[in-house]
Amino acid sequence: MISERLAELRRMMQREGWDAVVVPGSDPHSSEYLPARWQLRQFISGFTGSYGTVVITPSHAGLWTDTRYFIQFDKELGGTEYVLHKLRVPDAVQPWEWLGKELPQGGVVCIDGSCMSVAEVDEYRQAIEPKGGQLDNRPDFIDELWPDRPATPDDPIWVLDDVYTGRSVADKLSWLRGCMKENGCEAMLVNSLDEVAWLLNIRSADIDFTPVVIAYLLVERGRATLFTNPAKAASPAVRQHLEVVGCVVRPYEEVTDVLRSLSFATHLWVDGSTLNEALYECATDALKENVMNRPSPIRLEKGLKNDVELNGFRRAYLKDGIVQTKLFKWLEESLAAGTRLTEMDVADKQIELRRAQGEYVDESFAPISAWGENAALPHYEPTHEVCSEVHAKGLFLLDSGAHYLHGSTDITRTIPLGPLTDLEREDYTLVLKGMIGLATAVFPCGTRGANIDVLARIPLWKALRNFGHGTGHGTGHVLCVHEGPQDLRQNVYDQAILPGMVTSDEPGLYREGMHGVRHENVILCHELEKNEFGDWLGFETLTCTYIDPSPVVVELLTQEERDWLNNYNEYVYIRLLPHLTDDEKRWLRGKTYKL
Amino acid sequence: MISERLAELRRMMQREGWDAVVVPGSDPHSSEYLPARWQLRQFISGFTGSYGTVVITPSHAGLWTDTRYFIQFDKELGGTEYVLHKLRVPDAVQPWEWLGKELPQGGVVCIDGSCMSVAEVDEYRQAIEPKGGQLDNRPDFIDELWPDRPATPDDPIWVLDDVYTGRSVADKLSWLRGCMKENGCEAMLVNSLDEVAWLLNIRSADIDFTPVVIAYLLVERGRATLFTNPAKAASPAVRQHLEVVGCVVRPYEEVTDVLRSLSFATHLWVDGSTLNEALYECATDALKENVMNRPSPIRLEKGLKNDVELNGFRRAYLKDGIVQTKLFKWLEESLAAGTRLTEMDVADKQIELRRAQGEYVDESFAPISAWGENAALPHYEPTHEVCSEVHAKGLFLLDSGAHYLHGSTDITRTIPLGPLTDLEREDYTLVLKGMIGLATAVFPCGTRGANIDVLARIPLWKALRNFGHGTGHGTGHVLCVHEGPQDLRQNVYDQAILPGMVTSDEPGLYREGMHGVRHENVILCHELEKNEFGDWLGFETLTCTYIDPSPVVVELLTQEERDWLNNYNEYVYIRLLPHLTDDEKRWLRGKTYKL
Repeated sequence: MISERLAELRRMMQREGWDAVVVPGSDPHSSEYLPARWQLRQFISGFTGSYGTVVITPSHAGLWTDTRYFIQFDKELGGTEYVLHKLRVPDAVQPWEWLGKELPQGGVVCIDGSCMSVAEVDEYRQAIEPKGGQLDNRPDFIDELWPDRPATPDDPIWVLDDVYTGRSVADKLSWLRGCMKENGCEAMLVNSLDEVAWLLNIRSADIDFTPVVIAYLLVERGRATLFTNPAKAASPAVRQHLEVVGCVVRPYEEVTDVLRSLSFATHLWVDGSTLNEALYECATDALKENVMNRPSPIRLEKGLKNDVELNGFRRAYLKDGIVQTKLFKWLEESLAAGTRLTEMDVADKQIELRRAQGEYVDESFAPISAWGENAALPHYEPTHEVCSEVHAKGLFLLDSGAHYLHGSTDITRTIPLGPLTDLEREDYTLVLKGMIGLATAVFPCGTRGANIDVLARIPLWKALRNFGHGTGHGTGHVLCVHEGPQDLRQNVYDQAILPGMVTSDEPGLYREGMHGVRHENVILCHELEKNEFGDWLGFETLTCTYIDPSPVVVELLTQEERDWLNNYNEYVYIRLLPHLTDDEKRWLRGKTYKL
Repeated sequence: MISERLAELRRMMQREGWDAVVVPGSDPHSSEYLPARWQLRQFISGFTGSYGTVVITPSHAGLWTDTRYFIQFDKELGGTEYVLHKLRVPDAVQPWEWLGKELPQGGVVCIDGSCMSVAEVDEYRQAIEPKGGQLDNRPDFIDELWPDRPATPDDPIWVLDDVYTGRSVADKLSWLRGCMKENGCEAMLVNSLDEVAWLLNIRSADIDFTPVVIAYLLVERGRATLFTNPAKAASPAVRQHLEVVGCVVRPYEEVTDVLRSLSFATHLWVDGSTLNEALYECATDALKENVMNRPSPIRLEKGLKNDVELNGFRRAYLKDGIVQTKLFKWLEESLAAGTRLTEMDVADKQIELRRAQGEYVDESFAPISAWGENAALPHYEPTHEVCSEVHAKGLFLLDSGAHYLHGSTDITRTIPLGPLTDLEREDYTLVLKGMIGLATAVFPCGTRGANIDVLARIPLWKALRNFGHGTGHGTGHVLCVHEGPQDLRQNVYDQAILPGMVTSDEPGLYREGMHGVRHENVILCHELEKNEFGDWLGFETLTCTYIDPSPVVVELLTQEERDWLNNYNEYVYIRLLPHLTDDEKRWLRGKTYKL
């Protein structure tokens, strides 16, 4: 099927005079997780990973992705014409750099500018310029090859109450208008889906696991316009919610007309790092140099969680702690009783337990429930059709999360289901040391993620081991499970870790064909104190699920690490106690004994 | 005196129509340490620190410098008109940014383009452009205020034998010409003094402590031209050394004429990050867009030491280890005997002992010999005229280094001279933990200094303490004590730490009015092994001077740190043994006991 699609695309290329086609990995809003309609990359390649770009030429089909998906590439695309181009490795070659080399002199590259950001298109433009290459921007060129392409989703919008958000829409819009004024702009086009949802305190189910609304928002001084399918906003509650803050609803497609009709004297703020090229061209046609391409201030503001959101996060992790205690007890006892279970059975059971906790919205991403060697694929996604059985030996890894109305979670636990090898124990312990090393960091204000990421790696590095993904990402509040602006990774990136930021701490270790370990807690940055040496910051661990002490090689822990683990498990035990049955209490006591 | 000079400069400003004058902190070669002739900043301000920029306007005299010199500023410039502008602090404002705000519309800024790099001048140009400001480039404008300005130094050149450099000039030039060819250049103007000296294996005593030659080098395909005072190269040995590799000598000033007379088709490589603006303008006048402004490849090549250089470094640290054992024994015994000693007496004694080791060239920088609270000034420079007595209590800090013919050193030891406070012991121990943390790091190839710098800080950070300088700098081989391209600091900078790099590891802690601690070893990056997880690198400690265990608070060390310290001191003891008298051996045994 993939080879047929490639053949058809190449016929199209010949007809249109394209020397290369870029099939991007995103949607008009630079989203990470995509509705089916915008899974162009998967359509043309069959690759289901969440990150990657495809470039097709008459003689080459390449997929660019990062270390998380190298093994998955082999599984999904092995045997096809596709060649893997590795990103986030030393001497990585970006797809535009590759095109800059491979494109024939004066060649034409077809892009879909509706699904690529201004910044991304600029990379391609600059890379092919020395060759006299040209871009042919053809929004939705894929339609011709994809007759049954899914429609834009139209799930209803719902309102996330101020009781959960801690901040009214009026207040958020007034703050944003202040930023606009400071920057000399009368209008701002908000393009990122989670920024739209955050500003208006609205949510929807348009995208699996990510409760954003497919929409653009144009904020002007006296009004705001939400461009989305009006049927989604038809309920009286939503209509009133928007009306009160002066927000009118217009059809999604009309955003281009409205941009074109803006007074030419309007200074329009856009963020070209996420805005798609097609809309940017439309805005610059109308407003010329009055379009100001600057980073959106919403990203950081949204990343600094308020107290109501933080308490919501804490409640969410408490619920997940209860859920996972029940889940792992059930799993252990089921296996002991000889019940046959698959990875998906465990994931499904967890959803059932989470739902029972109340205020449950959805999972926050497709759960990674992985037994044995499956856990060596850092982003393995089991399905009901294809997944393994879980057996009473080795390590089982569960990376999952939920959206509750009051907050979202993202947690990984690796638990022993029976006898372990020495290497499994050692890897388990070293990864744990890394997670603790970062969680207990203290650092002066101004410190960036790249400055402290090593604290999660050095125990592994000293044993000549490493993991190929970042250590931590920001997590949204009933929004995207991965959100900026901060991250914790080796890459040099100039955003300080600031009080109020909620970030994951998830080192891992993966041995292909053997086992995988990842421990993930979520940590909140908060102020410690000021003194002559600086303004000091540290982390509070929000996650509230026990860490099984039994696989730990005690001699590998320092006293400080041992104390941390013992205190953490004791804290979890005490917090969960009121919510457990006597049987569960006894069981949890057995999983939280002091080392 | 300073106020008179300022008054005179302001009269000149009025006459010339300048709204501001920038007095830069460097020479025509972007050197860190300067001959007296180019100490313009010190002339106009009296500030003796090694880093800073002065900007004068009719109503303001500002000095911009970094955390190392905040206390020194108060001591040296307190009570004058000068205002301190802090750099390397959060929200630091660079001098050009300040000018961009303060300059009147259409104002004129006088610069000395012969002493400012292209890159630096660009910063000023861009910052004042929105104000319609203009630069007036007036090389040596200071001459008018400084009738007795010292001449360019003219110390003779000497040749550093291949026995010490491990690489012939012919080989180095052939390598450089290969780089030039790859970059499509027929000529390269080498501007950094240490790059000229390294390429030609020549040295001189033009600058205190930094045995470089004041010269430019123009490398073409078939020849090389050294622009320097010909009297410096008059000895037969030097003349022959240069002749053999096709290098002719022409007067220093003639570089401008030769650049102007280059064939207009010549592609000339210059590095605008160090080349001065005046010469760059001269080259672009002649060659237009054929001047290629790119980073010099010599910086990295010079930074990757060869085996002969590395063995030279090891021998140098062995000699310094012998010297410091004798020195600290002498110091301790002299104080016990009631001898009155000053900080400079200790520094002088060390020079005498170093000289006795043979192959001694010079100190590698002005020694920082600091007792008690003086050690709280990280870059305190005692002089024979102004320095303190050393007493048998508290901590004594000695940061010094030497050039031997075979290699250079840079070492700091903080030693107890009598009873210590608990805080002194704690600071001593925490700084030591940091030094060990970095020295024992293991990391994959590609890791940058900013990624591992925290390993030297985290023990201090956890106690809410910090130091305001970088943790490490590259060190030259009989060249500049500070050299690039690598460094170890929080600032994000994209140079990996690579095998062959020799870098200092020098965390510290400074308490104004109380005490200062710094432990500095020099560490060599080397390959460990390759495996599925990466190409692994680690450090070898080159420094061979004992670390006094007596101030250590043992409970603050992990077992790993304790083992490191014990092993290090045992290694030092065994290596020094053959070079010590029986009396010295006994004494050193007492300083290297196991904790």
